[in-house]
Amino acid sequence: MSDSARTGAADIDANPYKPDFPLLAEHLDLTFLDSAATSQRPSTVLEAQSRFYTTMNANPLRGLYALSVEATDAIARVRSQIADLIGARTPDEIVFTRNTSESLNLVALAFAPSVLAPGDEVAITIMEHHSNLIPWQRACADAGANLIYLYPTKTGELEEAEIARKIGERTKIVAATEVSNVLGQRLPIERLAAAAHENGAIMVVDAAQSVPHLPVDVSKLGADFLAFSAHKALGPMGVGVLWGRAELLERTEPLYTGGEMIDSVTETGAVWAPVPQRFEAGTQDAAGIYATGVGLSYLVDHVGYPAIAEREAALVSAAMRRLAELPFIDIIGSPDPARHHGVISFNVRGIHPHDVASLLDMQGVAIRAGHHCAQPLLAWLGVENLACCRASLAFYNDRHDVDMLGDGLETVWRTFHG
Amino acid sequence: MSDSARTGAADIDANPYKPDFPLLAEHLDLTFLDSAATSQRPSTVLEAQSRFYTTMNANPLRGLYALSVEATDAIARVRSQIADLIGARTPDEIVFTRNTSESLNLVALAFAPSVLAPGDEVAITIMEHHSNLIPWQRACADAGANLIYLYPTKTGELEEAEIARKIGERTKIVAATEVSNVLGQRLPIERLAAAAHENGAIMVVDAAQSVPHLPVDVSKLGADFLAFSAHKALGPMGVGVLWGRAELLERTEPLYTGGEMIDSVTETGAVWAPVPQRFEAGTQDAAGIYATGVGLSYLVDHVGYPAIAEREAALVSAAMRRLAELPFIDIIGSPDPARHHGVISFNVRGIHPHDVASLLDMQGVAIRAGHHCAQPLLAWLGVENLACCRASLAFYNDRHDVDMLGDGLETVWRTFHG
Repeated sequence: MSDSARTGAADIDANPYKPDFPLLAEHLDLTFLDSAATSQRPSTVLEAQSRFYTTMNANPLRGLYALSVEATDAIARVRSQIADLIGARTPDEIVFTRNTSESLNLVALAFAPSVLAPGDEVAITIMEHHSNLIPWQRACADAGANLIYLYPTKTGELEEAEIARKIGERTKIVAATEVSNVLGQRLPIERLAAAAHENGAIMVVDAAQSVPHLPVDVSKLGADFLAFSAHKALGPMGVGVLWGRAELLERTEPLYTGGEMIDSVTETGAVWAPVPQRFEAGTQDAAGIYATGVGLSYLVDHVGYPAIAEREAALVSAAMRRLAELPFIDIIGSPDPARHHGVISFNVRGIHPHDVASLLDMQGVAIRAGHHCAQPLLAWLGVENLACCRASLAFYNDRHDVDMLGDGLETVWRTFHG
Repeated sequence: MSDSARTGAADIDANPYKPDFPLLAEHLDLTFLDSAATSQRPSTVLEAQSRFYTTMNANPLRGLYALSVEATDAIARVRSQIADLIGARTPDEIVFTRNTSESLNLVALAFAPSVLAPGDEVAITIMEHHSNLIPWQRACADAGANLIYLYPTKTGELEEAEIARKIGERTKIVAATEVSNVLGQRLPIERLAAAAHENGAIMVVDAAQSVPHLPVDVSKLGADFLAFSAHKALGPMGVGVLWGRAELLERTEPLYTGGEMIDSVTETGAVWAPVPQRFEAGTQDAAGIYATGVGLSYLVDHVGYPAIAEREAALVSAAMRRLAELPFIDIIGSPDPARHHGVISFNVRGIHPHDVASLLDMQGVAIRAGHHCAQPLLAWLGVENLACCRASLAFYNDRHDVDMLGDGLETVWRTFHG
């Protein structure tokens, strides 16, 4: 009996999506369980990128002027599409960067100095990816401010008392990931934002792991800045997004200067272009931005967040049931599948995660092993060797993938103990 | 009689390259004369980008571990390829960025503060692109240093007396473009570098406009840092290169922090990864970097700099001869075609460059009009409206393109003067 029949949820025995993803369709023996690192891309995204370079400008009687305008328009359309997707008030609140890391660094390097003074506090959680952690260590060091960590329970729940204890009148910035890339846990961003705003602080959200899985609305979240990457959401590598409230972007100095981001330049100074161009120095990856829009359309319009949620819930439930049957597996984080948002981190007792990943790899099962750019979290959780295995699922996975993971782990165990 | 027959140079009546460039091959009525803004891309580059995402990992029995290693190896190979191309001592001297602007900003923001003190001088030329100008305005302002401009003759020749007058013991950094994006003029980088080094200063070279046209060797140039973009050299948008001498990169702090650029992170601090990873925070555009290598291979191995130089010289000569026949055209810069390296800027008397470009566009001729991100140069040259027309040629252009430009400009003139 299928999961669907048992639970009324998605039918993960079927996989209507795989044919759209060339790498998966052409490698049927591959079980790809590393979507939290980078997603696979549907063929429409790859075609879009080529189309931009080759045939986008369909009118051969119109030359550069038209080509340039078309490229500019394509970027503007994707800016609008993303603004609509995340509930920004205007497309001008969308800044294109290279990746989430750059987006968060831009906030920490260019905006934070305008609000941080000695003795102030920046509050982050111990669950942050290094990209939402090291920039704040540096921003605090530069400003003489203090970096305050919020710690969850050992299953990754951030409790009210911890929030109330750590966010206060000295807090100027709260920065948190919406979904942990190790625990899969969704953090109470709305509550963190409310605590920040009660104290006049700014809320920065790392949405790299949420946009691929959940509807993200900046006003519902109470965010002031929000960052994510195209390449984790079916788009190409090399495109990131920073959303910021218009009035905050307006008072942020650009970090990189040069072409495309100025109104005028003299020998002695320059006048910046308006937001968001001010933050986009030099030639942007217009083809990548165009393809980013196509990827997000596939995600949101073709599949849709409700179907994604149903399917990922069924996949995670099935995977965690299977892992629970293996007595040598220790799940990291919550035992509740509903808390995992596609991400399951675990260790195989007594076997180093790198060995687990290599042995799975030989069976065609692609997971990730290591510190997952979250060393302080692994240290705080007491994870041996600061390393663990992570299987991360997306809607394009299916029951076969879950079975391959379970079977593969049994083989790993037998290899060492057989 | 063809140019080739007349001069012994390249046969620009023939065009063996156009079939390799899908946009040109599919739009035979398009005359593309804006390669200095962004080049066209051969189909191999577009195929490479898709291949990375779909079929690069040809072994379906090997999963993520193998896929990841393959992606890492692909980046390493392109790093080596670029190191060989520009004469770097090791591939570790090659940092991947988003574009030339980012590369130059990295030097101005992350390296320059380590050498600039109040009263020190940074010397640049008035011919710089804004991306090699505004960052130095800011670096000087931040350090209390002074920005010194070198002025060429009105035809763009940088004379020895000017170099000797402006570069001296207070100079800590000299930054110059190798080829002006407005004048096409090649600057005497070797001489500037010698003057810099005599005074213990660092030589920064903007090679965005030279790598597509000329062999670039960092040791022959005497460069300490050098930057260029893939997208002007047949590669995709979104990939830039910063080369730096290893010992200089070693003492440069990273600007962006986060994933991929650390060795270890604790709650209180981080240890940076070695150069060059230290400067590459977050997920890089691995597909773009892979395609960059393919583009450079086409440029250097398939076409080759000797053929590029011959062909571009013949094209520029033919174009300048034709423009010289039009009494309403004023060439900006040198009257000598050999000085133009593919770039011809001009104005049509009494007609705004934007109108010229629009009318040419209607005839399928794509040039660029505006300030070309070089407002201080246009101001210094006394160019009206701080704007001019720019036709920029590449080896994939041919005599038909030159004829279309000439015919098009005659039509523009007749449109206004019947």
